[in-house]
This record gives sequence, structure tokens and C-alpha cells, in this order.
Amino acid sequence: MPKIQREKHPMPAVDVLVEGIIKGDTSALGRAITLVESNRKDHLEKANAIVQKCLSRSRDAIRIGITGVPGVGKSTFIETLGTLLIAEGNRVAVLAVDPTSTQSKGSILGDKTRMEELVKNPNAFIRPSPSGETLGGVARKTRETIILCEAAGYSIVLIETVGVGQSETAVHGMVDFFLLLKLSGAGDELQGIKRGIVEMADALVVNKADGENIKKAEAAAKAFKRALHLYPPKENGWIPKALTCSATENTGIDTVWDMILDYIEKNKASGNFLEKRKRQNRNWLYESIEERLKSEFFQDEVIAPEIEKFVTEVMADTISPFHAAEQLIGMFKNKS
Amino acid sequence: MPKIQREKHPMPAVDVLVEGIIKGDTSALGRAITLVESNRKDHLEKANAIVQKCLSRSRDAIRIGITGVPGVGKSTFIETLGTLLIAEGNRVAVLAVDPTSTQSKGSILGDKTRMEELVKNPNAFIRPSPSGETLGGVARKTRETIILCEAAGYSIVLIETVGVGQSETAVHGMVDFFLLLKLSGAGDELQGIKRGIVEMADALVVNKADGENIKKAEAAAKAFKRALHLYPPKENGWIPKALTCSATENTGIDTVWDMILDYIEKNKASGNFLEKRKRQNRNWLYESIEERLKSEFFQDEVIAPEIEKFVTEVMADTISPFHAAEQLIGMFKNKS
Repeated sequence: MPKIQREKHPMPAVDVLVEGIIKGDTSALGRAITLVESNRKDHLEKANAIVQKCLSRSRDAIRIGITGVPGVGKSTFIETLGTLLIAEGNRVAVLAVDPTSTQSKGSILGDKTRMEELVKNPNAFIRPSPSGETLGGVARKTRETIILCEAAGYSIVLIETVGVGQSETAVHGMVDFFLLLKLSGAGDELQGIKRGIVEMADALVVNKADGENIKKAEAAAKAFKRALHLYPPKENGWIPKALTCSATENTGIDTVWDMILDYIEKNKASGNFLEKRKRQNRNWLYESIEERLKSEFFQDEVIAPEIEKFVTEVMADTISPFHAAEQLIGMFKNKS
Repeated sequence: MPKIQREKHPMPAVDVLVEGIIKGDTSALGRAITLVESNRKDHLEKANAIVQKCLSRSRDAIRIGITGVPGVGKSTFIETLGTLLIAEGNRVAVLAVDPTSTQSKGSILGDKTRMEELVKNPNAFIRPSPSGETLGGVARKTRETIILCEAAGYSIVLIETVGVGQSETAVHGMVDFFLLLKLSGAGDELQGIKRGIVEMADALVVNKADGENIKKAEAAAKAFKRALHLYPPKENGWIPKALTCSATENTGIDTVWDMILDYIEKNKASGNFLEKRKRQNRNWLYESIEERLKSEFFQDEVIAPEIEKFVTEVMADTISPFHAAEQLIGMFKNKS
């Protein structure tokens, strides 16, 4: 006879969690995020209800995306910036989007010891990247986590991503300001940056501008500045800035923050801030629909084996892919 | 009382068209392509049946994609290459993928006078880009047209595309060999080429290597060759080549063709040729499924007005996009 397993810590009801979140209880926040990150159907329903209730809370938070190759110093940058923001009276949440992370491998934020100060600070909330097989899934979970953090009173949300695949595009689509961290290299400064990332960045910040590296970093920032002028200005009129900083020495971080505040202020005044949020929400709706349609189709237990059959036929050129798709969609529509 | 309109030239039955195509009757081929390009439901059904019947015919054709910015001389290149291929005993079909073209504006191949020789040649078949609002639609139509042309005995299919948006990716996904035409510039030769295109190209050919331009063109080809070596080799082991030619003077075109034949031969011997075709077919199936799922959903007359409502709510932050998507998909599933 199988043992009946009981959950050690039964999940509280939706209303209890929402109440806790709004009070700023990090344990309630953490458990709600666990629901958002779960793939279990009953968890998903609870998560939906919680997100829905949190949505009406706290609209004033600022969402900042931070990207850069491994080794550029993202964790230290976030540690230093986060500590500065908290000293100024903010509560700061730090999230991550890293679709390559899994529970077992740990994510870029998994090693919390890399943010020693911040992790001990009661006004900081740090959450590693949700594990997930698709970027779409990870992005959805992070977006909903942002809403929960904002409802819990975190006024600044920092979202870290490593420059892999399309994850920057996903993070760019959920933040108000997108910052690209760089190191100074030799000469051809924009070499090796994916062109699309430069076009998304609101600022390039050359990190590790300390010691003997200061001059090289400043030269790199200058080269970036020139290069950035070659790009057409953004829709909102903002010309991306190029700055230097040293996260370990805590120099230049305050200037970076002032620049971000300047950006936010200008965009709030022009109405672009809210417009961008609205556009992001609409895009997110369309992405969610597409993601969901595909998963309904490809995970359908009647359709899945049929797809296999058609893939074989299509590869053998005995049926046209378009015709095969049509037949599969027909089956999908008729079965429900 | 409204007049009853009769079609001046009633569309022949499927079998009649297929028979005509296989005989190499260009009028039957042209009418079948018209069915493929139509968005009418009854036309689509006929087109499906025709494509299905043609699929088993003629597998030996070679499909070549040709891209390059406007002014690089794509039409002249195709005219010269096509004439050469026909002189060698081939029958050549020329198609185009240009999602920006419309019936009224005409497409890049619409101005047939730009291929004066080829258009008069009985062994050439030239068809402008189908008009269509989405790249997906245009690509689907072109893919099916390739099948019809091959069934009609065209042994070489040249597919032209202008470097706009994602159309190169679409063409790259339907050809055996992908050729990027370039002009010689000054200095930084890979500047201004979208990085993704260079990674897709099996060869870069510097056109207009004639008169005073020869040296510059050869220097450009050398620079390209060096740059191409910086990219990792292709899965099939092929290192992309950089050549020069003059389409107007008809120099170097034969060398380009020999290179393509060398590529085809090597890839057929290694099995990569067939593997690539199979992979393309499978990708095309998945693309067709996604395209079709979306159009079923977004064009559904019950769902469309609901989407509008949810877009408004989502933009006002009164419902989470994910939750809205879930509700919309629920409606879609329950209505059928």
C-alpha cells in the first residue's frame, strides 16, 4: 500500500499569501514566486489568482535590465548599485533571466555568496532565475515575479541576464531601462557585441575602470559614444549614453544611477514611460497567446504521435509540409 | 439585377493541370502557381492537391538562393548565370521572395525587361514574387512553386531575394546553396552586412568586377575571404568562398557555377545534401503549423473582438497578459 504523502509546509491560501506580500513579508513573497515558477496545473491557477490581485498594487517601481558577457562583473555591479539604492531609502529586488539554468546546475544568481552584502540586507530581495526549458517559460515567470515584488513594495527591480541567445530581447521587453555592461578591449570596441544588443541598450557602461585600467576604460567609453551616435536615435529621443565605472571600487556607480533617473524623469514627463509599459504589456499578451497555442497543440496527447508520423512523411517528401500542417490542425480542431 | 459574371478562362481540373505541368506546359504551370498564390479557400484546396501530386516528381533539381542589396546587380547576374546554365542544357526557373511587393507596386522581378534575354528563352521560366502581407505567406507560396517548377522539369531553380528583414532567412531555408552578391566598397568590407547573412552565405561574390573596378573588387574578395575564415566552418565542413565576377561582361560567372557544382557534388557524396533537404522540410512543417495555428486563432470571428477587449485591459494593467491569454485560449478551445 502506498504511503500517503503530506506536504510538510502546506501552501497557504491565495488571500493569505496576497496579504503577506502586501505587508512585505518575504516568506509569503517567496512562496508565491514558487507557485508562479511551478508547472503544476493547480499551482498555476493559484499563481494566476495571486498575480491578478497583486497587479493593482504599486505602479511606481522602476525596472532595470542589466546584461553583459560572463566575467564583466554583473554580480558585483548589482551588489554595489543595490547597496547604494538601499542607502538612498529604496527597497530593491534582484531577479535573473537565464534559460540555460536548471535546478541542478544553479543559475547566475544561484551563487548568492557573490552578493554578500546585498543578500544580508533586509531591504533587498534576491531570487535566482527560474529553471525552465524554454525562454518563453522563464520570461513569463520572471515577468509575473516582477509584479509580485512590486506589490511587496520593492521600488526598484534589477533584472540580470547573461548574453546568451534571445534572453536579452526577453529582458529588454520587460524593463524600463536596459543597461549593457562592457569591459575595455583593444581597439575595435563594438567588435564582438551582437549588433542587436547595442540597438536595445539605453546605456553602455564600461566596468572595471580602476587602477591601471582607467585610461583604457575611458578610451573604450569614448569609442562607444562615437559608435552609438551612428545609430538612429531611439523613438523616445534618447541617445544611449556611454559611461565608465568600477563596481569593486564603487566609483561611477552614482553617475550611472543619476543617468537612469534622468532617463526615467524625461520619459515620464513625455509620456513615453507609460507608453512603453503599455506596449510591453500588449506584446506580452501576444507572446503569451502564441506560446500557449503552441503548447496546447504540441503537448496534446492525441496530436503528438500524429506529428511524429507527419514529420517522417515530410522528410521523405511524400507529403508537402503545408498540407501536413493543415491536416494536423484539422485533427486538433475536431478533437475538442 | 446583378449580372452573373463568368470566368473568362475557367480553371482546368487538378488532373489536367498536373498533366500539363509534367509535360512542361508553361501555361499549365503558370495557372497552377496562380492557384498556389491565391488566398481563396477553394483555390487553396486545388493547390494542395496539385502540389501533393507534383511532390513525387523530379528530385534532381538544384535550388540556389541569391541575395544582395538593391543595385548590386542581382537581375543581371541571374540573366547571365541563367543564360549560361541553359546553354549547358539546363532548364531554369527564376522565382523571387519579396514580402514588400504588392500586386500594384510590382516586385523585384516584376520588371521583366531587366532580364531581356532570359525572358525570351523557352528554357527559362520567370515568375515574380507572390504578393502577400506576411513573409510566412510569401515563403509558403514560393516553396510550393519550387515543387511545381521541379515537376515541370526545371533542373535549376534560382530564388532571388532583396536584403530586407527576414526574407534572406526564409530563402536560406528553402535552398541548397545560398549566394550573397556584394559590391566592392572602401576598406571595412564586412561593414554594413548584417552579421546573420554572412553566417548563412555559402559564397560571397563581388559583382561589377570590370573596367577600373577590377582591382578594388579583387581586394574586396580577398578581405571577405580573410573575414570568412574568422567564422566557424559550417556543419557540413564547407568554408564559404569569396569570388569576383562581372555579370555585365560575363566574366567569372562560370567560376561561380563551378564552385556551386563542387559544393553540390561534395554534399551529395557526404549525404549532407539530402540531410539538409530533410531538415528544411521538417522546419517548414513546424513553421506551417505555427503560422496556421496563429491564423486560425487571430482570424477567428468570435475571438478577434475578444482580443481587442483584452488588449485594452492588459494595457491598462487590470489583467495580467498571461491570464488574459489563458482566458482567450479557453474561449477558442470551447467554441469549436
